[in-house]
Amino acid sequence: MTAPARPIRVVAFGGGHGLSASLRALRHAATELPLDITAIVTVGDDGGSSGRLRVERDALLPPGDLRQALAALADEDPTAQLTATLMQHRFVAMTEPGGVPPLPPVARGPRIERRADRSKDTLAGHTVGNLLLLGLMEMLGDPVRALDHAAAMVGACGRVLPMALHAVGIEADVIDGAGRRSTIRGQHSVAVVDGRVEAVRLEPADPPACPQALDAVRAADWLIFGPGSWYTSVLPHLLVPGLAREIVASPARRLVTLNLGTDKETHGLSAAGHLGTLHGYLPELRVDTVLADEKWAGEPEPVRVAAQLMGAELVLAPVAVADGSPRHDPEALGVALVPVLGAAR
Amino acid sequence: MTAPARPIRVVAFGGGHGLSASLRALRHAATELPLDITAIVTVGDDGGSSGRLRVERDALLPPGDLRQALAALADEDPTAQLTATLMQHRFVAMTEPGGVPPLPPVARGPRIERRADRSKDTLAGHTVGNLLLLGLMEMLGDPVRALDHAAAMVGACGRVLPMALHAVGIEADVIDGAGRRSTIRGQHSVAVVDGRVEAVRLEPADPPACPQALDAVRAADWLIFGPGSWYTSVLPHLLVPGLAREIVASPARRLVTLNLGTDKETHGLSAAGHLGTLHGYLPELRVDTVLADEKWAGEPEPVRVAAQLMGAELVLAPVAVADGSPRHDPEALGVALVPVLGAAR
Repeated sequence: MTAPARPIRVVAFGGGHGLSASLRALRHAATELPLDITAIVTVGDDGGSSGRLRVERDALLPPGDLRQALAALADEDPTAQLTATLMQHRFVAMTEPGGVPPLPPVARGPRIERRADRSKDTLAGHTVGNLLLLGLMEMLGDPVRALDHAAAMVGACGRVLPMALHAVGIEADVIDGAGRRSTIRGQHSVAVVDGRVEAVRLEPADPPACPQALDAVRAADWLIFGPGSWYTSVLPHLLVPGLAREIVASPARRLVTLNLGTDKETHGLSAAGHLGTLHGYLPELRVDTVLADEKWAGEPEPVRVAAQLMGAELVLAPVAVADGSPRHDPEALGVALVPVLGAAR
Repeated sequence: MTAPARPIRVVAFGGGHGLSASLRALRHAATELPLDITAIVTVGDDGGSSGRLRVERDALLPPGDLRQALAALADEDPTAQLTATLMQHRFVAMTEPGGVPPLPPVARGPRIERRADRSKDTLAGHTVGNLLLLGLMEMLGDPVRALDHAAAMVGACGRVLPMALHAVGIEADVIDGAGRRSTIRGQHSVAVVDGRVEAVRLEPADPPACPQALDAVRAADWLIFGPGSWYTSVLPHLLVPGLAREIVASPARRLVTLNLGTDKETHGLSAAGHLGTLHGYLPELRVDTVLADEKWAGEPEPVRVAAQLMGAELVLAPVAVADGSPRHDPEALGVALVPVLGAAR
């Protein structure tokens, strides 16, 4: 008889769609390997629903990226999946195509009810999950307890933690096509800016790291960075001093999953450039493996060299969706992760 | 070996706090008797959060009373109870005492973030559960599926159904202290009006009953009416023609649980008068048992006579809370229900 294998403790850093793809891939990999998954999520979002909740209700954390990570880790069973779908459900503006169709007037009892006044449609744009996380955070006053309960509600096969205990701002120095430098404030503005990002900073510069996130980094077997919006979802973790120190000190192996295309905010940044940026912000960061798509990585040699400069081996694998768009296929990425993560045992 | 007893199928009608007390009592009774519990809930609420959701988003059903019934049936386990507490959590206005305290300015990154603008606090007054039910109804387009999923989320020990498939209006003819008659429109206005209610109507007068509610009435062993706001939470079920027909035709026994005090909207209506009102609106309604508190019922003889006119036996029991306020104690009410419901087996 052999003792059951200790699970491989994996910590995935990121935010938004990139982290979601990484977590869905880990769920696939977990069918082959025993994995203990923790997501550590950026808390800089100031756009859309999350931004409004910061402005209107001083939301302790912007919930959007946290909600997406929870949905990605939701249990496969139909009830948990429906709860996850509900959390992702966005209230569409009533006046927009695809909005809720008006009911027949009789249904409203027009003689008695005030007429529907869609101009007051203040919920439009919010997702149910953002409001649920806001409610939990306000009710419990503890973002980690709030996230652990939301995770239980979707039967999450892992834990979702914030990179810091309160929301942060993100600002960037950007050089536009004409060579003019300006400072762009706010994650949303940085993410969509037209120009080359020269430097990115957090505000405040030293936010309190989440203690449970630090514990997870200390205990990890693997730390996974990317894919995702490089400056606003991947780098911010390295800019939280307390978290960066633990990342450098952790005995874990480190994997960087490169993006497929270059999104607007990394305009001009090659695959090798992505690695150089990580190195630039945290020179002590040693990397063991860089995972890139064999088609999207382009000429592999510069990537291999950039990886080697950080101590990493380049692994090329087919991890993109089949339709040719620059998105990771969670299942393919999961298949590629199995030999990488399993090799550390 | 004896076959396991078939559960006693109980249908509880009502809305708001009264129905909530009835359902919590049934949960207590279910520790002694095998009960299959269905709540059939009024859908006339046009006040507060529910009213705003009808106006702003044409909510298919006002969620407030449905949410309260779900919370009352939530499983005892701590995770389900926390989800139920979350559903009941109301976003308090940020500017009110007890509202969310402002975070230290540094936490918001004031250089980057827009300043918090609490004047735009559009969530204040909504409960998380109302928004969750609204999201489920919009997403699924089927209020019964939405309610069944919300019930699963709190591990409800019973089913919650609406009395009709869309929101209705409630209007009442009221006579004030000076003898002037007026028509009051909207459940909220009727519930708080100062005066004697002469007649109450639904708008539209013949809303579509919920088919699953009709099935539950047909299959029931017991139908339970009250406690609750008599004109706006208990009577409305009898005003839905399709539902009233099934109530009259059902082979189930019927229990009326009388209110303890008389609330504003039934000013001047005695315990016997409550029964007379039920009889007045649905003369074919036969009742088997009337349950009243031995202290609050006052002189029992008129109540006994009114009960007998409907074919019912009066049962007096101590069912009020100990502090002297006119509220049912769910546990005491549950204890009183056991011999009543059990006798029908």
